[in-house]
Amino acid sequence: MTDYRAPRQDVDFILNRVIGRDRLSTLAAFEPLDEELVSAILDEAGRFAEQALAPLNAPGDRAGCRFDNGRVTTPEGWPEAYRQFRDAGWTGLCLPESLEGQGLPKVLATPVTECWQGANLAFSMIQPLTEGAVEALLASGDQALIDQYGPRLTRGDWTATMALTEPAAGSDLGQLRTRAVPDGDGGYRLFGQKLFISYGEHDLTEHRLHLVLARLPDAPEGSRGISLFAVPSHRLNDQDEPAERNDIHCTGIEHKLGLHGSPTCSLTFGQNDGARGELVGEPGRGLALMFVMMNEARLSVGLQGVAVIERAYQNAVAWASERKQGRHCETGEGPVALIEHPDIRRQLLRIRSQTLASRLLGMHLGFQLDCARQTGHPDRELAQRRVDLLTPVFKAWSTEVANRLAGDAIQVFGGMGYVEETGVAQFYRDLKIATIYEGTTGIQAQDLLFRKIQRDGGDGFRDWLDQIETDLSPLSDLASAQHAWASLARQARALRNRVDWLLSEKADDPVHLHAAAVPLLEATGVLASAWQLGLAVRAAQDEAVTDEYRNNVEALFSFYCAHWLPELSASLVRVYQAGSGGGGYVFA
Amino acid sequence: MTDYRAPRQDVDFILNRVIGRDRLSTLAAFEPLDEELVSAILDEAGRFAEQALAPLNAPGDRAGCRFDNGRVTTPEGWPEAYRQFRDAGWTGLCLPESLEGQGLPKVLATPVTECWQGANLAFSMIQPLTEGAVEALLASGDQALIDQYGPRLTRGDWTATMALTEPAAGSDLGQLRTRAVPDGDGGYRLFGQKLFISYGEHDLTEHRLHLVLARLPDAPEGSRGISLFAVPSHRLNDQDEPAERNDIHCTGIEHKLGLHGSPTCSLTFGQNDGARGELVGEPGRGLALMFVMMNEARLSVGLQGVAVIERAYQNAVAWASERKQGRHCETGEGPVALIEHPDIRRQLLRIRSQTLASRLLGMHLGFQLDCARQTGHPDRELAQRRVDLLTPVFKAWSTEVANRLAGDAIQVFGGMGYVEETGVAQFYRDLKIATIYEGTTGIQAQDLLFRKIQRDGGDGFRDWLDQIETDLSPLSDLASAQHAWASLARQARALRNRVDWLLSEKADDPVHLHAAAVPLLEATGVLASAWQLGLAVRAAQDEAVTDEYRNNVEALFSFYCAHWLPELSASLVRVYQAGSGGGGYVFA
Repeated sequence: MTDYRAPRQDVDFILNRVIGRDRLSTLAAFEPLDEELVSAILDEAGRFAEQALAPLNAPGDRAGCRFDNGRVTTPEGWPEAYRQFRDAGWTGLCLPESLEGQGLPKVLATPVTECWQGANLAFSMIQPLTEGAVEALLASGDQALIDQYGPRLTRGDWTATMALTEPAAGSDLGQLRTRAVPDGDGGYRLFGQKLFISYGEHDLTEHRLHLVLARLPDAPEGSRGISLFAVPSHRLNDQDEPAERNDIHCTGIEHKLGLHGSPTCSLTFGQNDGARGELVGEPGRGLALMFVMMNEARLSVGLQGVAVIERAYQNAVAWASERKQGRHCETGEGPVALIEHPDIRRQLLRIRSQTLASRLLGMHLGFQLDCARQTGHPDRELAQRRVDLLTPVFKAWSTEVANRLAGDAIQVFGGMGYVEETGVAQFYRDLKIATIYEGTTGIQAQDLLFRKIQRDGGDGFRDWLDQIETDLSPLSDLASAQHAWASLARQARALRNRVDWLLSEKADDPVHLHAAAVPLLEATGVLASAWQLGLAVRAAQDEAVTDEYRNNVEALFSFYCAHWLPELSASLVRVYQAGSGGGGYVFA
Repeated sequence: MTDYRAPRQDVDFILNRVIGRDRLSTLAAFEPLDEELVSAILDEAGRFAEQALAPLNAPGDRAGCRFDNGRVTTPEGWPEAYRQFRDAGWTGLCLPESLEGQGLPKVLATPVTECWQGANLAFSMIQPLTEGAVEALLASGDQALIDQYGPRLTRGDWTATMALTEPAAGSDLGQLRTRAVPDGDGGYRLFGQKLFISYGEHDLTEHRLHLVLARLPDAPEGSRGISLFAVPSHRLNDQDEPAERNDIHCTGIEHKLGLHGSPTCSLTFGQNDGARGELVGEPGRGLALMFVMMNEARLSVGLQGVAVIERAYQNAVAWASERKQGRHCETGEGPVALIEHPDIRRQLLRIRSQTLASRLLGMHLGFQLDCARQTGHPDRELAQRRVDLLTPVFKAWSTEVANRLAGDAIQVFGGMGYVEETGVAQFYRDLKIATIYEGTTGIQAQDLLFRKIQRDGGDGFRDWLDQIETDLSPLSDLASAQHAWASLARQARALRNRVDWLLSEKADDPVHLHAAAVPLLEATGVLASAWQLGLAVRAAQDEAVTDEYRNNVEALFSFYCAHWLPELSASLVRVYQAGSGGGGYVFA
């Protein structure tokens, strides 16, 4: 029964008002994109998501993927949907036109990706893998590999995988054991087992390229000994055409809590004489190149939180508007629709306010990524710093809250929410992995605290806090927002003080810092969300915005500051108490 | 791979030290129970849970129940397990010896029930239904019904259902439409459809008694027109033996997110000439009698949160102790076991501290219920008031946190947690319904605020806060707890002030009150948990308690006050802002 509508009104508002045409026009990639063309792209993406992908979501979950003797069959209708998806050019949305991609900026690709994810998360996962692989090849500078695989991947004729995890190497990739042995001919033979490879085997395309982390024979221990290899499912012959199958075998797929339509494969490389592959970039630079994929992937996973919760919200609102239970709390009339009850509104606003905030933050990061990548862009350096700082926050916070909010959406349905046919339970199941893959929330938090805050002594973090102040202080003059802004400003100062304290007082206390990392990320996530909603309130003052939408944005900002902002204070207490608290971290 | 061990150490400590033999001995039902007998009962329950029920949990989830032409088949091994369960006398644990029950006090039955739930939640659900039904019959005073069905249910030869929900009547039972027509012979014929009936049909016993809410022909609208009927699956003949099948038909079972081993049935009463049943108690008193079952059921559901999270915790600790990933944050050595990482410890302590707190609160309520039921018990009246006040808090808070903590337990496992074979995903799926059935969290919160706090002007609530002060002020003299107690006392005062403010300033603002109810319940849940852990710290000072256990309890109390208590403040801000916040509750 679940339905999906692409959230066009928000997206148009964010593009045209919050980020704004002036800033968008600083992007070279935006030059050919007038408002009409942007609109046409979003229309087309929305239509495809709503009409082709969304209807396959629940049946795909029920049917799941099948594994049979090394082959994987995706749910009914998926190969045809993929063919349409590929033929429409969506696979290479952000990839260079030189590789037959569309060359769209990230800021526009972000809402397009959200559509695929909201419509059918399991299906959507194949696209960022392809995109990330091409970007890793481009970053390596290996022109032969770029020429061989770039256009094939960009066109979607081939798909790609990130083959990282092994039985003993999950969050800790330094432990991986897959070996790459030089074949004496400039290439390598790979031997090893990889786990949890999304779309490692499937029936959507015949060919795929695995980007595999492995060790050269003389490589040092740990993560510096890891190199990246391009290992095709089929070796290219002298005419550069795919020919014989490589020595790669899918040995099974996982039976998962959710994402049943997305095959999660175990792959054996080199069961016989070795899987032939080529080194990508320099030896020992594997993790650095993988991080090119990984950072993109983290944005994409953060967006999954937004997308799936948007759909859960749409369904919950529809149900709450229709289902009549209980009496009106003021008039006593009834039965009234659930949505008339203040507690149901509270739950829906909780979802809606965070969803809009996460969407704003995701598109903001998409835009910053565009600026960071454009040679000569005036804000390039700052944009890169912001992407670095806020990517782990967005990835972890957007997905953590999405997990909670998916539970709230089930709650709105009452007992019906627990019945699989209703559809919201799938969102709850699908989303749980989003806080884990591409780095758990704990990993994101350590990235934030140690690499993004501590490394530069907190300067970049404080710069960002200064910008929030600059961005939002005009809200002091706005009756509808000044109260919320006052709370927000107070909490931002508290966060600044606590970070200063951590960096000065706790610098030599790694146990405290490690235990404080997740609460610190949570506090930062709340602040980043409130900041983005505050920017939305400012942008909504434009007279081109309808009164209704402006009122909604203002109400959501107020609600967020009333309801979500208290979590910031709670998290800061935890940051403070992380290493103290009377031995609280002595394991009991 | 999941294993389960009954949490005996906690239970012994709570019984013998926190509640204490002195207080237990005020219960008549405890008279025959010396320490040895109590120990034997808990041993036996633990053994049966660990050895007979736990191994059926995951296979039962995978196989689920089957529905075929009105018949329901439970998973393989369940009928045999039920036979053993019944023959061992566990079905009538708390029921009177006059009905062939064991007559155990609730305070002892509570940890026994926790064992069944932790071992196999889907299986365990059948027992409280039986118990609740017998108690409803006892409360009705209908001796003929008690004689006919009491021993059969108590012995477990028959099982029982609560047939409340209908397609249009979920949280709002006032809307139910099932009709009961007098048959002219002192009995009734029932016609209607009931939904979501746990164990409404199954193959564990041949016979069952449905307690059905329905309307008499001349009944008024709404909830005052609802009466309770005893409707057997098989009509009793003149020798009071079950004979021909009644006109009740199971039309299907739900395909649910979890609890696959527990059949959730749709039942049609009176598809032909009407299902024969008898009125229980007075006409129009159906809801009141159902609430006899319901309050017990709420305690039992609250306990589900404790039980399943205990098991998830045990599994997470085992995994974290074994799985090696990453380097030690101080020494740089590695790879080390996950449990060496401060962030993993934080997650585990988050689970453990709340689980112990919820277990304490559940057993406290069990004891209060015993006192409240014992004619002439010196604390009878106060105990009943505490049961009334804290039952909705325990039900909602224990299950809400269990949902979150089940997600955290998955997180400890990383990607492996998302794979169904690991077993933690089942706990996450099984638990989601616990915040919904027997009244959603929203319903519990309204019960708390309107019936349990506002109705007596807040006196009972303030009495409870006074008791917390009395109970815990000795902690001021305990170096290991005084800091945590100071925070706790401050938060308790804040809660008191906020409730006073709600009752005085917001008494005429139903929208604010309704929107504030859930945050208020959350704040109360945190405080009740911290209070119980504080009592545990006091009890742990007894020199009979081992140093290790005492240190653990003190560390958990400190951790709870450092980590969970900040949620109380956050919730109080929400209580304050519920109706204000710049139109935050205008639906956007």
